[in-house]
Amino acid sequence: MQIRAGIVGYGNLGRGVERALLSVSDMTLSGIFTRRDPAEISAFSGAPVYPAERAKELCDGFDVLILCGGSADDLPEQTARFARNFNVVDSFDTHSKIQEHFAAADAAGRAGGKIGIISAGWDPGLFSVSRLLGEAVLPGGADYTFWGRGVSQGHSEAVRRLAGVRDARQYTVPLEESLLRVRAGEAPALSPHEMHRRECFVVPEENADRQRIEADIKNMPDYFAGYETTVHFVTQEQFDHDHSAMPHGGTVLRTGATGENGCHRQLMEYRLRLDSNPEFTAGVLVAYARAAWRLNREGQCGCRTVFDVAPAYLHPASGEELRKKLL
Amino acid sequence: MQIRAGIVGYGNLGRGVERALLSVSDMTLSGIFTRRDPAEISAFSGAPVYPAERAKELCDGFDVLILCGGSADDLPEQTARFARNFNVVDSFDTHSKIQEHFAAADAAGRAGGKIGIISAGWDPGLFSVSRLLGEAVLPGGADYTFWGRGVSQGHSEAVRRLAGVRDARQYTVPLEESLLRVRAGEAPALSPHEMHRRECFVVPEENADRQRIEADIKNMPDYFAGYETTVHFVTQEQFDHDHSAMPHGGTVLRTGATGENGCHRQLMEYRLRLDSNPEFTAGVLVAYARAAWRLNREGQCGCRTVFDVAPAYLHPASGEELRKKLL
Repeated sequence: MQIRAGIVGYGNLGRGVERALLSVSDMTLSGIFTRRDPAEISAFSGAPVYPAERAKELCDGFDVLILCGGSADDLPEQTARFARNFNVVDSFDTHSKIQEHFAAADAAGRAGGKIGIISAGWDPGLFSVSRLLGEAVLPGGADYTFWGRGVSQGHSEAVRRLAGVRDARQYTVPLEESLLRVRAGEAPALSPHEMHRRECFVVPEENADRQRIEADIKNMPDYFAGYETTVHFVTQEQFDHDHSAMPHGGTVLRTGATGENGCHRQLMEYRLRLDSNPEFTAGVLVAYARAAWRLNREGQCGCRTVFDVAPAYLHPASGEELRKKLL
Repeated sequence: MQIRAGIVGYGNLGRGVERALLSVSDMTLSGIFTRRDPAEISAFSGAPVYPAERAKELCDGFDVLILCGGSADDLPEQTARFARNFNVVDSFDTHSKIQEHFAAADAAGRAGGKIGIISAGWDPGLFSVSRLLGEAVLPGGADYTFWGRGVSQGHSEAVRRLAGVRDARQYTVPLEESLLRVRAGEAPALSPHEMHRRECFVVPEENADRQRIEADIKNMPDYFAGYETTVHFVTQEQFDHDHSAMPHGGTVLRTGATGENGCHRQLMEYRLRLDSNPEFTAGVLVAYARAAWRLNREGQCGCRTVFDVAPAYLHPASGEELRKKLL
């Protein structure tokens, strides 16, 4: 029996999920929901496109919805709303608001008898699992998360808002010397400024004051001030050619010492290097969508995170096959 | 309420578990079971030492037993026997016999209403989870497990059995050029001989024929034939000084392609670098012992593997704390 999945929101992430669903054999894309005019959208898979407001009346046709909206504006409202009538999964990534997002999705899921899995991308998501494993296995150790080299949407947006900027992209880059110190087991105390540097590619408007733009970027509180920041001005053509991809990645490290007087150093490291952040996130979402449906089929409801889902739920094979092939 | 843990078998792994239990605040070491004469054993923690045959009568004093025997001789008999009366966890690592080990532990756990978690080390164990995540998130990709640089007990033992060998240790070493090809996303087809080389340190008996020993090692079927193998003869003093530690580690890689025509390469990598293999394995066992007790407290019984345990069960903190701190 195929798991009938739906996509809500057809941007980069939604298209990534569409493609990811085509690459698994136990799930089918049964439809895409959009707030735009469905007539404007032609899904390359040929899946039907529905207006978002018709979702509730179509709920019998879907086992799980994969929510592909943004964490700033879409998911805070969508996840809880859809979780009343559907099993849902999202990649909500506003760390400071996860508690309220969890509570809202939990209440909705319990009311409707559905499962909602939130924050199921790679950070939060797979990186979170790695951090938890590190703390559980090496208590008393130190952990570090380095991001990049990759595009930060938030920082790119902050630069785009400056006067005189036509387009911009910001790459977060881990400071290699700090990463090497952590790997060597030094367990250094590192401020955020000592872990990452920031690299900006800016398309200025005609006759814009480049010096002022560069100063505005480098002095921007929270986003750039204190960081080693470089600013490159490029033409729109260069920008479109070199900076339209969405690479990202990062490394979670846990270092600890065991044995008499902590004589033995132990290192756990989890690393992602992604040519396409949204397409990888899509793969994570599809795996957790499978899990959401399976958990609900067992009679469970309410909100879950990656911490609450046993690995076996993510993989299409049976427990016996998994033990034979992967254990 | 403290989780009262017991250790069965007081070798390197058992002592590692003893130390690991001292480093967590929610568990207590309530006793050690041994097949030796308990009077001969003085646990550095001061924990009481009991003869193994008294375990059953003492079962009310333990919430979970951590089985620290070997996979060849001890665990095939011990895990199922103890799982009738105790929640248990082991690091059984004979891949070819996991199915029957699972079945025996499952029957015993169900009969006694207890949980048994098997194969909970790092491979099988954390590496298995990483392989599963790779397949679930990047279906259609390729995966690779490189081991080392680290001591292989099986290969060391095989060398020690040769005539003229007083002591020996074998290190499995990943072939860096193959690892780099995988990281680069080439997805090469690699035979075992193309992934690892083998390095032996041998203490020969007096007047032993070193040339013959070296040939015997290099031609040994299954273990060494076909591998790039180097043999170093050392004195007992050198051996004791340089080769008494038990380092190990390895890397699980998953590479895949996403996007139109697979244009985007994605890499997931999980790496361990361990100064002490048994002490790290001990940390994994302690985390899964916590999980075994929690699962059983929920009313579950039977056999589980790392695939069946949600991450949250491994960490002492509550779900809410985990979401705040680690998600």
